[in-house]
Amino acid sequence: MPETDAAPAVNPSAPRPADARPPEAAPTVKTPEFRSDVTVELVRSSAHDSDVLFAARVSTMGELTLDGAQASADGAQATKGAGLINYLMRDRHGSPFEHNSMTFYVQAPIFVFREFMRHRMASYNEESGRYRELNPVFYVPAPTRNLQQVGKPGAYDFLPGTPEQAALVDEATRAASIQAFEAYQRMLDAGIAREVARIVLPLNIYSSMYVTVNARSLMNFLSLRTKREGTHFPSFPQREIEMCAEKMEDLWAELMPLTYAAFGANGRVAP
Amino acid sequence: MPETDAAPAVNPSAPRPADARPPEAAPTVKTPEFRSDVTVELVRSSAHDSDVLFAARVSTMGELTLDGAQASADGAQATKGAGLINYLMRDRHGSPFEHNSMTFYVQAPIFVFREFMRHRMASYNEESGRYRELNPVFYVPAPTRNLQQVGKPGAYDFLPGTPEQAALVDEATRAASIQAFEAYQRMLDAGIAREVARIVLPLNIYSSMYVTVNARSLMNFLSLRTKREGTHFPSFPQREIEMCAEKMEDLWAELMPLTYAAFGANGRVAP
Amino acid sequence: MPETDAAPAVNPSAPRPADARPPEAAPTVKTPEFRSDVTVELVRSSAHDSDVLFAARVSTMGELTLDGAQASADGAQATKGAGLINYLMRDRHGSPFEHNSMTFYVQAPIFVFREFMRHRMASYNEESGRYRELNPVFYVPAPTRNLQQVGKPGAYDFLPGTPEQAALVDEATRAASIQAFEAYQRMLDAGIAREVARIVLPLNIYSSMYVTVNARSLMNFLSLRTKREGTHFPSFPQREIEMCAEKMEDLWAELMPLTYAAFGANGRVAP
Amino acid sequence: MPETDAAPAVNPSAPRPADARPPEAAPTVKTPEFRSDVTVELVRSSAHDSDVLFAARVSTMGELTLDGAQASADGAQATKGAGLINYLMRDRHGSPFEHNSMTFYVQAPIFVFREFMRHRMASYNEESGRYRELNPVFYVPAPTRNLQQVGKPGAYDFLPGTPEQAALVDEATRAASIQAFEAYQRMLDAGIAREVARIVLPLNIYSSMYVTVNARSLMNFLSLRTKREGTHFPSFPQREIEMCAEKMEDLWAELMPLTYAAFGANGRVAP
Repeated sequence: MPETDAAPAVNPSAPRPADARPPEAAPTVKTPEFRSDVTVELVRSSAHDSDVLFAARVSTMGELTLDGAQASADGAQATKGAGLINYLMRDRHGSPFEHNSMTFYVQAPIFVFREFMRHRMASYNEESGRYRELNPVFYVPAPTRNLQQVGKPGAYDFLPGTPEQAALVDEATRAASIQAFEAYQRMLDAGIAREVARIVLPLNIYSSMYVTVNARSLMNFLSLRTKREGTHFPSFPQREIEMCAEKMEDLWAELMPLTYAAFGANGRVAP
Repeated sequence: MPETDAAPAVNPSAPRPADARPPEAAPTVKTPEFRSDVTVELVRSSAHDSDVLFAARVSTMGELTLDGAQASADGAQATKGAGLINYLMRDRHGSPFEHNSMTFYVQAPIFVFREFMRHRMASYNEESGRYRELNPVFYVPAPTRNLQQVGKPGAYDFLPGTPEQAALVDEATRAASIQAFEAYQRMLDAGIAREVARIVLPLNIYSSMYVTVNARSLMNFLSLRTKREGTHFPSFPQREIEMCAEKMEDLWAELMPLTYAAFGANGRVAP
Repeated sequence: MPETDAAPAVNPSAPRPADARPPEAAPTVKTPEFRSDVTVELVRSSAHDSDVLFAARVSTMGELTLDGAQASADGAQATKGAGLINYLMRDRHGSPFEHNSMTFYVQAPIFVFREFMRHRMASYNEESGRYRELNPVFYVPAPTRNLQQVGKPGAYDFLPGTPEQAALVDEATRAASIQAFEAYQRMLDAGIAREVARIVLPLNIYSSMYVTVNARSLMNFLSLRTKREGTHFPSFPQREIEMCAEKMEDLWAELMPLTYAAFGANGRVAP
Repeated sequence: MPETDAAPAVNPSAPRPADARPPEAAPTVKTPEFRSDVTVELVRSSAHDSDVLFAARVSTMGELTLDGAQASADGAQATKGAGLINYLMRDRHGSPFEHNSMTFYVQAPIFVFREFMRHRMASYNEESGRYRELNPVFYVPAPTRNLQQVGKPGAYDFLPGTPEQAALVDEATRAASIQAFEAYQRMLDAGIAREVARIVLPLNIYSSMYVTVNARSLMNFLSLRTKREGTHFPSFPQREIEMCAEKMEDLWAELMPLTYAAFGANGRVAP
């Protein structure tokens, strides 16, 4: 997504954008930064358990006034509401879980976003390497990240690496990131278009995006991108997208506690 | 969508549901009601012009904090914001218009819902004739409704009917509705399942639903379901769904005035 | 949806369309017809088990030539293919089941189409009551159709009706259909626009449509619209849409026998 | 995405998968390969202009037999068919263009796939860096690739680079690719899981996928991912995804010549 004129006004002292930078300018030296985590913030939401109940009840009480629906969702109806939500979840009546919306701001490496955007029931706006110069922020696995893959395809398990393996991953990732970013900067400094220069950047560079989903879509995402004991279906997510999913799950659980409880109680399957 | 146990608690004095009514019970006499309008209420929304700006700016200011984004969306930035939204609309950068949500409650005849639900980028929960006994509320065209179709297929125009035509439509619609509902009630009174009895009900019976959309999807709907002079593409909606669309449009225009203005200024085409 | 042959320049000798019929013309007497079945034909398809295998194998053999993929899908690989498809189904790797397409032509009553079109992962083109005069073909339940609904909401069961009930349904449905169609014809004969006159038609009038789906979407449809013993999740479809689903299932089973077998073996859950 | 041949029971003589390679094994030396093009093959299709006509005509000739539809699509009807398709395109009757399917096999660099998969109305299966060891095939811009970006954001233009710029891009891209792949191989050779090692690979490494679309979805893609003079709306695609789009367009044009012509004649806007 482009933006034209807003940047200078926001920060008039900001460095001139790369496309204006003459080839002879002294390169802006950016120091690479390494992270091992992801950022997930809840930007906006309109998501309540009562929305599920309203939507479900329109089926059976078509002429329902909103006041009446509210009454039936409040107070003494709490237990009943939980029962209805559980029933909807169990019997896969999924549509009442769609009348809500959550917008998350996510910072994660590109290899995570690649998996993320395979989920088509969501709205995305991602930072563009065509429209802005990317910052040298790179993902490096934490020392606790499992490094060895065992088992057969389709049912891999991951075990801790040896200290030597951990050191190699750390060193090789940092070195490759720095080298790649130097090549990127060298091309930008020579006046090459951002969209060309960026092609040498590695999959562990961070990007950021807004993603908007409803609870039904989010449950599908969580079902496939978290690995838990005792779920109805097994899932084998890569750890880094699971880190995003876990943060999204925590934020969602606060917004819709009854729905969240029913999701867990019914094997973490999206209805 | 079904509901099991909630109905009695909500209104313990409500008549016993139809499925419990013994065949020998005295029929509940329901008096048919006729309407010529539709109901559209905004139930919930999280929809602001600033959401569009946030989403668009993440492209160019990836590491943007939310505070910064808010600042750039407020105050002196208002004009600038309008310009950016207009640019996004004009050049079909549609995804920033998806990070918002509006839930409408709609009452309209079934022939309108049939057209409505062809729009797949929306979430629906409709009153179910399988789960509840339907009320005898029927649509009858208002005297001002155009009744004569002229022109060639694909570009029909509609003109006022004669007084005789208007009288016939009014009379025939009322009579057919009453006859159909009598057949429906007769079957229910004989213990026939609701899902079977309802098949004789006409397309002008009212139903109700919750529908949730985002602004991009709504613009697509409005583009196809309203007929305006000077739009980029012509549309030929049936008047009754246009009545719904107009009410949705008014409610949306209040929520997102800049986006709404840009939609109009760019030929009412969904980006 | 447009009508082609009415564009005068294209075919000046075409019969005059219904909307050109002068009010004074002698009404075309159409005799109502009653049916108790549905029509489902496979119009087009490009759907093979090998498509599933190709798509799955691109994940692990990226540079795969098509010849190689074909070889690995044929002959001695048949058993292996069945195993892979079963594995994909079981572990919910759904995307390989999307690279295929089936177009069905369906004739069914409108109350069935109303349920059908709630499935948004499909492409539809339906006969339009705005563009053509509808034929008086109506659904009437067969004598074997269960008529009594027992059990509690959300888990209804349906039992045979009494002979009196069956007779009532048959008589009331036929009478209501005939009355409604007479009102429709009376309005058409008076020069009322088709889109207005049709509103009195009942939900049991037949319509027809083209619907295109892929196997993943079809499995979701079958999972929800057929009721079988021993499935992973229970479903409670109305019998009439199940009649459509069963015919679609039979046609699909012939096209993709391995996929179909895996669907059944894994609880009839869409992956 | 699974790998088939690793299930020991299925094929015990299969070569040991990469994840079984012991750390001490001599590394497989893979020589990096550089390309400046993309591969697009049509794998499967069921896509004909007549499908559009069938679907459109079901609206107006509901009870149409297939033979009748075929007849009206053939022979003397050819001109009429072209007219109808043009009319549908012009007035945005989009649904008749959905009853068809094309599956493409695409090889392109990851930065292209990142843009590609933002199109949600398509089915994708991509080579997985989690399930297989990736090959060192990298994209390097051809000497003819424009390298300088001029103009303002939202309306960039691209001009040829200087010989020095071209040389820098070529050299820097090759060097960065080789360095990154060496880091990748070093980690694999040390027994690091593929899903971890791959994170250092650059965005210009090739991947491959199957993508299935219908003509309506494809037109939307082409509308946004090709840049042509005289189109209804301007588009600013990155050249590399446009290279894919152009090949897809050529293949589609052969399958559906009337639809293709109407797309061009109406400003290359998806209906």
